[in-house]
Amino acid sequence: MQRRNLCGTFAVLLVTGLPGAALGDAPGGPVAIDRSQALEQAIDGSHAKHVILFLGDGMGDSEITLARNYHVGAAGRLALDTLPFTGTYTTYALQEAHPTLPDYVTDSAASATAWATGFKTSNGRLSTSARTDQPLKTIIELAQEKGLATGSVTTAELTDATPAALASHVNNRSCQGPADMAPCPRYKKSAGGLGSIAEQAIDHHVDVLLGGGRQRFEQVIDGGAAAGQTVLQSAIAQGYAVAGNAADLDAAQPGTKLLGLFALGNMSLEWHGEPARPFPGSGPQRCVEDQRPQTEPSLAAMTRKALTLLAARHRSFFLQVEGAAIDKRDHAADPCGQIGETVAFDAAVSVGLDFARAHPDTLIVVTADHAHTSQIVPPPSQTDHSPGSFSTLVTADGANMTVSYATNLPGRMGEHTGTQVRIAAQGPQAANVVGVTDQTQLFDTMARALSLIGPPASRGPFHAIARFLGLE
Amino acid sequence: MQRRNLCGTFAVLLVTGLPGAALGDAPGGPVAIDRSQALEQAIDGSHAKHVILFLGDGMGDSEITLARNYHVGAAGRLALDTLPFTGTYTTYALQEAHPTLPDYVTDSAASATAWATGFKTSNGRLSTSARTDQPLKTIIELAQEKGLATGSVTTAELTDATPAALASHVNNRSCQGPADMAPCPRYKKSAGGLGSIAEQAIDHHVDVLLGGGRQRFEQVIDGGAAAGQTVLQSAIAQGYAVAGNAADLDAAQPGTKLLGLFALGNMSLEWHGEPARPFPGSGPQRCVEDQRPQTEPSLAAMTRKALTLLAARHRSFFLQVEGAAIDKRDHAADPCGQIGETVAFDAAVSVGLDFARAHPDTLIVVTADHAHTSQIVPPPSQTDHSPGSFSTLVTADGANMTVSYATNLPGRMGEHTGTQVRIAAQGPQAANVVGVTDQTQLFDTMARALSLIGPPASRGPFHAIARFLGLE
Repeated sequence: MQRRNLCGTFAVLLVTGLPGAALGDAPGGPVAIDRSQALEQAIDGSHAKHVILFLGDGMGDSEITLARNYHVGAAGRLALDTLPFTGTYTTYALQEAHPTLPDYVTDSAASATAWATGFKTSNGRLSTSARTDQPLKTIIELAQEKGLATGSVTTAELTDATPAALASHVNNRSCQGPADMAPCPRYKKSAGGLGSIAEQAIDHHVDVLLGGGRQRFEQVIDGGAAAGQTVLQSAIAQGYAVAGNAADLDAAQPGTKLLGLFALGNMSLEWHGEPARPFPGSGPQRCVEDQRPQTEPSLAAMTRKALTLLAARHRSFFLQVEGAAIDKRDHAADPCGQIGETVAFDAAVSVGLDFARAHPDTLIVVTADHAHTSQIVPPPSQTDHSPGSFSTLVTADGANMTVSYATNLPGRMGEHTGTQVRIAAQGPQAANVVGVTDQTQLFDTMARALSLIGPPASRGPFHAIARFLGLE
Repeated sequence: MQRRNLCGTFAVLLVTGLPGAALGDAPGGPVAIDRSQALEQAIDGSHAKHVILFLGDGMGDSEITLARNYHVGAAGRLALDTLPFTGTYTTYALQEAHPTLPDYVTDSAASATAWATGFKTSNGRLSTSARTDQPLKTIIELAQEKGLATGSVTTAELTDATPAALASHVNNRSCQGPADMAPCPRYKKSAGGLGSIAEQAIDHHVDVLLGGGRQRFEQVIDGGAAAGQTVLQSAIAQGYAVAGNAADLDAAQPGTKLLGLFALGNMSLEWHGEPARPFPGSGPQRCVEDQRPQTEPSLAAMTRKALTLLAARHRSFFLQVEGAAIDKRDHAADPCGQIGETVAFDAAVSVGLDFARAHPDTLIVVTADHAHTSQIVPPPSQTDHSPGSFSTLVTADGANMTVSYATNLPGRMGEHTGTQVRIAAQGPQAANVVGVTDQTQLFDTMARALSLIGPPASRGPFHAIARFLGLE
C-alpha cells in the first residue's frame, strides 16, 4: 500500500537523458541506514598536509538548490553535496564608522578577510582592520612563513575581492592595479605603500595564481624598485612563468611560480540564457551550455593544474579555488549564467575530491562568502508573482522551476543577503564545520589543520586575553 | 596588532540590556579549539527512548538568522543553534497531476507528510499519496502500534497542516472540521470515510493534543457512531480531558488523554510591530513583546506540560512541537510577529534540551518544513531598495537590520521558497541529519531511533524492492 511515487521517474530520466535520482527516494537508496558509524569513522582530528578551500561566491543554500534542481534534478546530488561534515556559518561584517557594530550584509571583501585572517572587518576592506586600517595577517602569509606552498584560483580577476584578501592588505577593494589607486592614496608604491592588489599578489610570491584580470597586470608600477615596469614585467622579473591561455596552462611545468591570466577582466561564462525579467518573466527555458571559449581553461582545469603544480613541490600547500561568477550573475538576475557557474564550480570540487582520494591527508572545505538574491518560488500568475524579475527554467527533472530576483528594483543590481550559509568539509579537522560557527572560525580550522597556529595550551593560558586586547 | 573589534560590543550590550556575544568572536570564546573529539563523543548509534521533533514552520536559515540577529545579536546563539549535529535537507513536493515530477516549492501539508510518513506527496495533501489518494502510515500510527505514547503541540489550529499530517489521512488540508468537508466528500463520516482532520485526530487517540482551533472541534459530526455530537463531545466520550486555558493546562494531571484547545482559531502572537511596507518601508523599530494573553499558554509551557504528561506514562514517546506562526507572519510580511514566534519556538526547544539533559536517551530534532520569503538586505536608498515590502529593525546589537519580503506583490501573501533548509539534532541517531538529506529521511531517522522500523537486514534483502513496488 505504501509506495514512493518513483516508477515514472525513471521514464523521465530516460527521456531527458540527464543525470538524476528517483524523486522521493533517499540518495543512498530506498532504505536509509544508520550513518552514525560512518560519520564517526570520518572524524579525523589529526593535522592535514594540504588544505583546499572551495569558495562559491554568493553560493547560498538557495543557489545550491537551484543548481541541483536544474542540473541533476531535485533528488540528484552535486559533488559539493557529498562532503561528510556540514554546518552553517554566520557572515556579518562590521561597520567602518562604528566597528563595534555589525553590518548584517557582508560584501566579498570583508567576508574573505574574515576567513583569510580570522578577523572581521568592514565592507570593501581587504585584510585590514575596520576604521584603524591596520594589516591583518592572512593564512597565505602564515603558510609561507612555515614553508608551505600556496595557490589561488578564480574565475574573476585575480585582483577581485576573494583572491585579493589572501595576498594583499588595502583599505579599498577597487584598488586593483597601480592605475586604480585613487581610493587608496597611502597604499601607492610611490607613497611608500604596499601597492595595488596586483602588485601585492606578485610581491607575495604566491606559487600558483590562475584567473582573469590581465588589465590590472598590464598597468605600470609607479614607485619602488620596479617603478616603470608593468606588474606583469615585474612578475616575470621575480621568477613567474606566465600563461595566457588554456594551451599555455596545459604546458606549464613544475619548478617555477605560475601566473595565469586568461582574460583581460573576468573570465568568460560557462552558460548563457535569457535573463530574468519583470512580469510575465522570461522562459520557460533551457540554458545554452558550453559557451566558454576553449582558449580559456575551466575552473576544473585550473584547479587540476594548480594541484599538480603544488603537489610537485612535495610539501604542504594551501590552495583557494573561487567560483566567482555565481555571485556576479546573481547580481545580474541571470539564472543560466549563475547556475552554469555553480555547476562549473562543482566540477572543480570534484577535482579536489579526486585529489583527496589519493591524498587523504587533505582538508577540503566547500562554502560561500555570503548568500544572495535568488529564490525558488511557485509558478507566477497574473495576481501573484515576484515584484522583481523572474525566469522559469526547465530542469533535469523535466519540470518547471521559477527563480525570482527581488532584492532590488528590476534593472538595478541585486543585493547580497545576510542569512547564514552552508559550510561543508572532509578530511583532517573537518568535523569543526558542524553546527553553527562564524566564518572567522574557518580561518582557525584551516590554520590549525596546517599547524600554522598551535593548540590553545601551547600558546599559554592568556592567549585568548592577549588576542582580545590586540597584543598578539 | 591583530585584534578582534570587540571592546565596544560589551558597552552596547550593557546599554541594550539584551543577551548577546562579542562581535567577531567565536561562540566558544576567542580561541577556537578542535571539536573533533567532542563530535565523536556526541555520536550515539543506539536507539532512543523518546523522540521530540521541533518543527519551525517556514523557519529557513534566513528566518533563523533574522531571529538571532534581532534577539541575541549576530554573534549570539539561540538554543536551536546549539545542537551538535547539523545538515540541510531538501523539501520539494510532487505534482498531483504528474506525481513523477517534482513541485519545487512545497506547502506545509506535503512537507509534513514527507517527514511523518517517509513518502512525498502533492501540495495540500495530508498523509495520502499524490493522485492515487491512498493512505500513508504515519510515525504516530507506527508508534501507537508499538505501544508508545504520542503527542502533538502547535501554536496553530490542531487541525492545521503540520499536526494534521501526523493523525489524519485526507486529500485536502482545508477539511479541518466536519463542516469543512466540501473539498473531501468521500472522506466525510456520513459517506463512510475517516472524517475531518479534527475527527481523525480524536479517533487516533493521540495522548496529548495542545494548540488552537476550538472552532473545528465545536462542529457536529455527521456520521458514524458519534453522529450528532460535536467533535469535542466525542473526544470527552472517548476519554479525553479538555483544557481551555493556561490554568486548565497547569492543573492537568497524568492518567488521561489531554486535549488542549486554547483559541478558536490560531493561538495569539507573542510580539507585535509595524508590518513591512513598500518603499520607504517601515521602521526603524523595536518590536513590542509579551502580547500573548496570559490565558493562553506559551509554546514552551505547552511543551513542558506535554513532556511531563508523556514522561509520566513511563514508556517511550513521540512528541511533535510546531512553531506554526513563523510561517504565517512571514506570509503576512510581519517581521516582529515572525521573529517573536521564532524566539518563542526557541524557548520551546530549550525546554526539550532541558528534558534531554535529564533523559539522554532522547533524540531531539529541530528543523523546518520549508523556507520562506524574508531576506536580510542592505539598508534601502531611493534608487536601490526591495521592490516588495520591507522594514528596518533595531537589533540586540544596537544596529539596524533591514528585512525584505518580495516573493509576491506588496499586499499579496508572501510565498514559500524552495531552498534546502537546516536540520539539527542531538541524541541517539542524531548523526543521521548531517550532510544533505531529504525530509523523507527524517521519517527513517526518527522511526529507526524508536525501533519502529528494523534495520534493512532484518527486513530481508528485498525490502527495498518491495517497498519500491508498494508491496510493503
